[in-house]
Amino acid sequence: MVCVTKVYEKPILTDPVLIEGLPGIGFVANIVALRLIQELKAKLFAEIRSSSFQDYAATAENGEVKYPTNELYFHKGRNGGRDHIILYGNTQALTTVGQYELCGRVLDVAQDLGCRYIITLGGLKCEGKVDTPKLYCAASDPDTLREALNLGAGILGGQIFGVAGLLIGLGKLRGMRGLCLLAETPGFYPDAAAAREVLKTTCRILRLEVDLSRLDVAAEATRSTLESFGFIPSPIEKGTKEETRYQGVI
Amino acid sequence: MVCVTKVYEKPILTDPVLIEGLPGIGFVANIVALRLIQELKAKLFAEIRSSSFQDYAATAENGEVKYPTNELYFHKGRNGGRDHIILYGNTQALTTVGQYELCGRVLDVAQDLGCRYIITLGGLKCEGKVDTPKLYCAASDPDTLREALNLGAGILGGQIFGVAGLLIGLGKLRGMRGLCLLAETPGFYPDAAAAREVLKTTCRILRLEVDLSRLDVAAEATRSTLESFGFIPSPIEKGTKEETRYQGVI
Amino acid sequence: MVCVTKVYEKPILTDPVLIEGLPGIGFVANIVALRLIQELKAKLFAEIRSSSFQDYAATAENGEVKYPTNELYFHKGRNGGRDHIILYGNTQALTTVGQYELCGRVLDVAQDLGCRYIITLGGLKCEGKVDTPKLYCAASDPDTLREALNLGAGILGGQIFGVAGLLIGLGKLRGMRGLCLLAETPGFYPDAAAAREVLKTTCRILRLEVDLSRLDVAAEATRSTLESFGFIPSPIEKGTKEETRYQGVI
Amino acid sequence: MVCVTKVYEKPILTDPVLIEGLPGIGFVANIVALRLIQELKAKLFAEIRSSSFQDYAATAENGEVKYPTNELYFHKGRNGGRDHIILYGNTQALTTVGQYELCGRVLDVAQDLGCRYIITLGGLKCEGKVDTPKLYCAASDPDTLREALNLGAGILGGQIFGVAGLLIGLGKLRGMRGLCLLAETPGFYPDAAAAREVLKTTCRILRLEVDLSRLDVAAEATRSTLESFGFIPSPIEKGTKEETRYQGVI
Repeated sequence: MVCVTKVYEKPILTDPVLIEGLPGIGFVANIVALRLIQELKAKLFAEIRSSSFQDYAATAENGEVKYPTNELYFHKGRNGGRDHIILYGNTQALTTVGQYELCGRVLDVAQDLGCRYIITLGGLKCEGKVDTPKLYCAASDPDTLREALNLGAGILGGQIFGVAGLLIGLGKLRGMRGLCLLAETPGFYPDAAAAREVLKTTCRILRLEVDLSRLDVAAEATRSTLESFGFIPSPIEKGTKEETRYQGVI
Repeated sequence: MVCVTKVYEKPILTDPVLIEGLPGIGFVANIVALRLIQELKAKLFAEIRSSSFQDYAATAENGEVKYPTNELYFHKGRNGGRDHIILYGNTQALTTVGQYELCGRVLDVAQDLGCRYIITLGGLKCEGKVDTPKLYCAASDPDTLREALNLGAGILGGQIFGVAGLLIGLGKLRGMRGLCLLAETPGFYPDAAAAREVLKTTCRILRLEVDLSRLDVAAEATRSTLESFGFIPSPIEKGTKEETRYQGVI
Repeated sequence: MVCVTKVYEKPILTDPVLIEGLPGIGFVANIVALRLIQELKAKLFAEIRSSSFQDYAATAENGEVKYPTNELYFHKGRNGGRDHIILYGNTQALTTVGQYELCGRVLDVAQDLGCRYIITLGGLKCEGKVDTPKLYCAASDPDTLREALNLGAGILGGQIFGVAGLLIGLGKLRGMRGLCLLAETPGFYPDAAAAREVLKTTCRILRLEVDLSRLDVAAEATRSTLESFGFIPSPIEKGTKEETRYQGVI
Repeated sequence: MVCVTKVYEKPILTDPVLIEGLPGIGFVANIVALRLIQELKAKLFAEIRSSSFQDYAATAENGEVKYPTNELYFHKGRNGGRDHIILYGNTQALTTVGQYELCGRVLDVAQDLGCRYIITLGGLKCEGKVDTPKLYCAASDPDTLREALNLGAGILGGQIFGVAGLLIGLGKLRGMRGLCLLAETPGFYPDAAAAREVLKTTCRILRLEVDLSRLDVAAEATRSTLESFGFIPSPIEKGTKEETRYQGVI
């Protein structure tokens, strides 16, 4: 096993948009994707596991074992609206090679379903306190960029790390358009405020209507999932010696 | 070569349970597995070597060369009891990718023999002195969990590292049930006391009768094997300059 | 995906020379290759992407996404002159295995087009100020070496790191002649002076006429491209806290 | 490319012994192998290159490019004596996975030529001054071990690192006998005295007659080759600033 795609169901989609929502800075993309899945009642149809994910399992409060995974959901647009594929998960790959492979698999699935447009989301780490997080964008081509700029996003400078950058770069090689939307965030915790800005603009671009008031709940669920994997330090364990208890077999 | 499975014999088994016993914290699983193999007179039927194991050989006291390996044993249950597959060895893989691959190979063999239930064992590192090591569990599903809870184990929190966690996570993808049993241990040496708690509960779940009095011998054998590989510092070498003598070709 | 070659057009070339110009010490090769591509109006015909390149994308000033890539250009010699293949790009591979694989792919393409001669370029890091950078050479065989020595280059001592060394070593296994030309450089910035020496000798060997006066422009373009990828620290960001703003999703 | 075997000629051999002589502690094996190749006029018949070797080339004093490689030589035994395969080279692989793969390729070639017996050589790092280096041995089986013990070698304790250990461990999986001979050495330079002890015993086991007086020359040649790759610090460069001059393209 290196990277395994398990397809549970192959939906028939019309010109779907792939929306990326894996954990990253501020867990912005992760919150937005979870909120979209809930609101659109998107359906899980495929799962990707990679040997570049963490080599450990996590336990939920009820003792059930959870594992690092990426999931793909689909949503059929209502009233002639667009179809969507949402990439959700609790991790990105841990190595450069693993990231390339993971993105390759995601694009394989998306391309096979007719996808020609990718939107990647995320947080842009900034110093100090943020009142209203500003939104930044980058795109694979001028037309796609203009659309985001018209909605008030600024032009992004510098690098786009991880899956958010790779999916657009590798998608371009396959002739897919790509847009990256990042909101300012201090980056240390699941940031509902940054997620709100990203979700708002994503919805306007995709002509979706999503209730923005429940982002705090999605942020809290995101925190809980990622805490159990040790990606976010648990507030209970912090500063105690207890954390060493929670280390299983090497 | 990356990961090679050498099958010496393909046993016919009925609904066998896979019991994982590779070295980890406190070498708990390793001691239990050795004890089970001895007591059940389990038979070696396959060996797995990985290029993610150590790239060196060890020498036994008699000059014979030993190498890092994983072995699979089987045991046909007596009087209509269950059949067992025991995973034993002197190492886990050294890299994340190697661990995934190793677990994939183990599951390939187990699944091919009809296995649908995995029990992984280990130690849970804890601070300070432990009188009677407490047992913790996690499972792939509520039914399997309940069984362990009924026998007095507590619910495990946090991560399950290594093969003990991966086998359950990857097994679930193949529709296999999984249970992880960890006993408290300071973790620095082969811990017969922790192994006793894990073995006791494993035997009750599997309805096996095993003489618990000889665990010290199994712990001592485990220490000896792992010392020759340098995984446990030898008490003789410690604090002397002698250890530098025992370093062969780079 | 590990290493993917995308061939846009397969040119018919006669005994072409492969000229390597990837980023390295002083970005000497990179500047020379860019200048050659501009002057010869060489045409892009293939692209190589590797999962050992950076796992991030960069954004240009206009918001367009750029990604780590290697490109192959060709030029048909005028008036019966030689044909050329130019390897240009914004990165080398990040790992040893990746470097080998990348060179293998480059040689596959070159060999397929009839190439039997490779010239690799670069900088030779030296201490202190350099007035007129001295040129050094090494070659796969005495005849090729003599040609460069006759043009005033000195004999190179020590190791030739990266693609500049590997292409010659791996090319030799395929029966290709190889020459490496390195000019002295302090190595910290795109060094037009070192590039001038390398380009001058390369042109004499290949009987090419190239306007040397525009190397500063090529050096500036090289700096700008590599800065956007973060390979060269931007003078604007340096010493400010601003740089942390430009870090996208992990 | 990952690991490439290039076979120039396939000799017909009768029950040949594989003798391993790659660089390691004290470069003992490397000196012995070179001496055997010279004395037996053994013939190069195959070459192995790996992407886990160094990703750079070296230059000889005459400006010729040399590269990291492993070579296989054969020698047809005279007067009904045994045939030999000698593994020689200027490096081992740099990673654990690379070492496994390299050994796998070497064993593929050897097994294909009918080899069922492997002798690996090396140095055993020891503290302080060594007058007459003592010889140590380890083997895959008691019979092979006894043969070396009878010739005065002691029993080796501890680990056998690198190709010397791996070849025996992996060979055993293929049903090949293996013997490892290590001589005491301080380990920092090509050690002709340690090589003499190893060569003497190797020759007695293989019933070979080799002139031991020319080991100093082989040690000097070994030093020169490895110095040009930077594996042994050159006495000329040491302590000067000159060494930074000899760093080519990154």
